[in-house]
Amino acid sequence: QIDHFGFDENRTFQQRYLVADQYWKKDNGPILFYTGNEGDITWFCNNTGFMWDVAEELNAMLVFAEHRYYGESLPFGNESFSDSKHLNYLTSEQALADFAVLVEYLKRTIAGAQDSPVIAIGGSYGGMLAAWFRMKYPHVVVGALAASAPIWQFGDLVPCGTFFSIVTNDFKKSGTGCSESIRNSWNAINHLSSTDIGLQWLSNTFHLCSPLKNLQDAAVLKNWLSETWVNLAMVNYPYKADFLQPLPAWPIQEVCKFLKDPSLSDKLLLQNVFQAVNLYYNYTGEAPCLDVSQTATKSLGEMGWYYQACTEMVMPLCTDGVHDMFEPQKWDFDALSEECYRMWGVRPRLSWILSMYGGKNISSHSNIIFSNGGLDPWSAGGVTQNITNSLVAVVIPDGAHHLDLRSRNPLDPKSVQQARALEICLMKQWIGKARHSH
Amino acid sequence: QIDHFGFDENRTFQQRYLVADQYWKKDNGPILFYTGNEGDITWFCNNTGFMWDVAEELNAMLVFAEHRYYGESLPFGNESFSDSKHLNYLTSEQALADFAVLVEYLKRTIAGAQDSPVIAIGGSYGGMLAAWFRMKYPHVVVGALAASAPIWQFGDLVPCGTFFSIVTNDFKKSGTGCSESIRNSWNAINHLSSTDIGLQWLSNTFHLCSPLKNLQDAAVLKNWLSETWVNLAMVNYPYKADFLQPLPAWPIQEVCKFLKDPSLSDKLLLQNVFQAVNLYYNYTGEAPCLDVSQTATKSLGEMGWYYQACTEMVMPLCTDGVHDMFEPQKWDFDALSEECYRMWGVRPRLSWILSMYGGKNISSHSNIIFSNGGLDPWSAGGVTQNITNSLVAVVIPDGAHHLDLRSRNPLDPKSVQQARALEICLMKQWIGKARHSH
Repeated sequence: QIDHFGFDENRTFQQRYLVADQYWKKDNGPILFYTGNEGDITWFCNNTGFMWDVAEELNAMLVFAEHRYYGESLPFGNESFSDSKHLNYLTSEQALADFAVLVEYLKRTIAGAQDSPVIAIGGSYGGMLAAWFRMKYPHVVVGALAASAPIWQFGDLVPCGTFFSIVTNDFKKSGTGCSESIRNSWNAINHLSSTDIGLQWLSNTFHLCSPLKNLQDAAVLKNWLSETWVNLAMVNYPYKADFLQPLPAWPIQEVCKFLKDPSLSDKLLLQNVFQAVNLYYNYTGEAPCLDVSQTATKSLGEMGWYYQACTEMVMPLCTDGVHDMFEPQKWDFDALSEECYRMWGVRPRLSWILSMYGGKNISSHSNIIFSNGGLDPWSAGGVTQNITNSLVAVVIPDGAHHLDLRSRNPLDPKSVQQARALEICLMKQWIGKARHSH
Repeated sequence: QIDHFGFDENRTFQQRYLVADQYWKKDNGPILFYTGNEGDITWFCNNTGFMWDVAEELNAMLVFAEHRYYGESLPFGNESFSDSKHLNYLTSEQALADFAVLVEYLKRTIAGAQDSPVIAIGGSYGGMLAAWFRMKYPHVVVGALAASAPIWQFGDLVPCGTFFSIVTNDFKKSGTGCSESIRNSWNAINHLSSTDIGLQWLSNTFHLCSPLKNLQDAAVLKNWLSETWVNLAMVNYPYKADFLQPLPAWPIQEVCKFLKDPSLSDKLLLQNVFQAVNLYYNYTGEAPCLDVSQTATKSLGEMGWYYQACTEMVMPLCTDGVHDMFEPQKWDFDALSEECYRMWGVRPRLSWILSMYGGKNISSHSNIIFSNGGLDPWSAGGVTQNITNSLVAVVIPDGAHHLDLRSRNPLDPKSVQQARALEICLMKQWIGKARHSH
C-alpha cells in the first residue's frame, strides 16, 4: 500500500525483502527482522553479520526488509523523487506500517512461521525504526535490538553540541595534535580561499575533481571535510573494514599520523589534511581525484534521507569550536526550514517525532535493547542508561557506529563481545517468553 | 495539522474542544480527556455525566475533544465531504494524532498542567479511540477507560452474528412473543410490499413522511426497522433518557407491550410494529410523520461515519434468522467494497485495523479498562474478560451502551454502580503511580 494512512491513494508498490532460512527451525523458529534504513537493503544485509552469526544458534530465519524510497523499493519508480507529491509517502510511520504488513504476510504465507516470534533488529536510523516498531506494533514484534539509534537526537532532548564533541574526542585520543590540527585547518582554508590563487592551490592540493571557484565552493570543501571527520568517527572500527569506505583498522589513528603538528603554516597543515582525507577516500589507491559531493558509499540514498531530514527527522546539531574541533555553527531551525522549502516545497515539523514516539517518556514500553558505541557520535542522542528492566542500555566503550551488528572478528574488543552476548541472552528470553505464552 | 502523516498538505484546521476546570486542582491535578467520536462534541459532553460526577472527587479538569470531520471540526469547512480527496484525512490515526498534539498543547499552555496525568475516556467508537490512544501514545495518557468499545468487531476476531443475537435476546427477555413478532414482521412486509396497494397500506400504517413506491423502498423500510431495534437495544436504559431519542425507562419493555402476539395476521402484526417503532420515534408525540432516512439524533455525523465504515472501520455483521430475529443476511465484503467505491471512490481495507491496533494480541499494553454492558449489542466485539492485571474487563450485565459513562441516577442498577466504583479506583491508581514516578 503506497499510503497506509489514507484511502484516496489506493495503489500499491513492490517492496524488496531478502530471506535466509537455512538455519530456521520450521516449527515456529524465531524470525530476526532487519528494519531497513536509508539505503540499498543488500548493502545492509552484507554489513549486518551479527544476524548471520546468531542465526544458527537461535534457529532463526533472517529477513531484511528494504525501506520504501530506497534501493529498489521505489513507490513511483523513477518519479519517486520528482516532487513533494511523490515524496509524500516517505515517512517513518509509513515504513513501520510496511514492516508490520510484511511480517504479517510472511507469517501467514510461510509454512511453520505462523507463531514464530519476531525480533526487530536495526542500526542507526534503522535502529530507531526497530525501537519504534516495538513501541508501536508490540503485537508484531516481541522485542527490538536498536543499535546506535539516536532516538533522542530530536527537539531539545539532548544538547546539540555533544555529537561533534564526541567526534573531536575520538581524534584527540587517537594522536597528539590531531584534533588541534583539524581545528586550525578551517582558518587555513579561509585564508587561502580568499584569493583565486589560493582557491587553485586548494583544488590542486586536495586533488579535487572539480576546482573551487569561489567562497561558496570553499564552504562546500569545509563541509565535506567535516563530514569526512564525522564519518571516520562512525567507522572507527578495530579491524580493516569496508562500510562507508574501505579503510584500515582504527582508521582515525592512521589519519592522525598525518596530523601531528597543529602549528604548521597554512599550506603545510592543509597538505597534511589532504593526506588524512586521502586515506579515507583513497585507501585502495584507485581514486583519480576526490569528489566533494560524495562522502560515503553510494548504497545510501542521499536524496531520500535529505527529504526525511527536511520533514520528520529534524536532528539539531551545533558546534562551538571550543568543545569541538569544528567551525562554530549554531543550530538554526529557520534556515533549515527555508532551505527545505526551497528544495522540496515542504517544511520540517520540529516536534512531531516527539509527539509520535514519546521523546524521553517511553518507560511503559518493553523489550528493547538500546546499544551504543562510546566512539560513535550518534551515541549523543542514544539511550545509554537502562530505563526499566526491559528497556536495556548496552554501552560499548570501544565501539564505533553499531559495531555490535557487524560480524564477529578476532580483533573485536572484549566490550563488543560482551554486548553481543547480552543481546543474544535477552533475545532468547523474549523468544522463550513468547513461546511460553502460546 | 490536516495531515499528520505527510508533509505535502501543510495546512491546519481549527479543532473544537471544551474545557471545564472548576474542579481542577491547579497543581498538576489530573485531566480527564474525552476522545470524541462520530458526532458533535457538545452532545457527547452532555451525555457523559460520569466525567462530571467524578471531576470533584478526582480534582480533575475535563476536556472534551471533538473528532475531526464531526461537529464544527471540519478540516475543509463545507467542502470536507465533497470527495475522496477532501475526506482523505478522516481516519482514526489522524484523530489520535490530533488528540496527542492537543493534550501536549494543553499541558504546555495551561499553567499548572505541565505534569498533570491525563486519562483518556470514551464510549463506543470513542471508547476504541481511548483504548488505542493509550496503546499508541502511552507517553501522552497514563490510562484509558474504553466504554462499550467493540475493538474486536473486526476481521474474523468474533462471530459476525453475535451482535444481532444480543439484540434479539434483549427483546426476547423483555416480553413474551416480542422477538417472535419482529421475526415474523419481515415476511409480513414482504407479502404486503409485493403489490402497490400493499405498499400504500404500509406507508399509511407506518405514517411515513414519503410513501413507499417499490420493492427497493420496502427494503429501506426493513433496514430502518432493523436499525430501530438495534438502537433500542443500545439505549435500553433503566430510566427515562434522551440519548439517540427521548425514551421512557427500559424502552424495550415498553415496545414489547405492543408485540405480544406473533401469530397475528400480517396487517395486525404490522400495526403493532408501528406502535412499537412509534414509541421510539415519537415518544414526545411531536413527530407529524416517520422518516425512514433517520434513526437517531442528528448530532451524530452520519456522512463521516459512513465514510469511515467504508475505509478503516469495517465491522463484519450478519444475521441468520435463527439465532436472531432478523432476515438472514450473510456478511458480504465484496458488496460493501462495491458500494463504497460507488459512493466515495474508495475501497475498504479489511485487515488494516488489525495490523494497526493488534487485534487480540494486545497483552503488552497496560492501564486500559474495557467496560461493556450485557444488554449492549456492541459487547459482542468488546473485551469482556481480563487480558492482564492492567487490561481489565468490567462487565455490567444490566447495562446497555456505555451506561457507565452516563450520570449517576437513582434507578441505576447495582452492577453499574459497582462498575463505576472500580473504574474510579483504577483511575486513582494510575494517577497515583504517575504522580509517584514524577
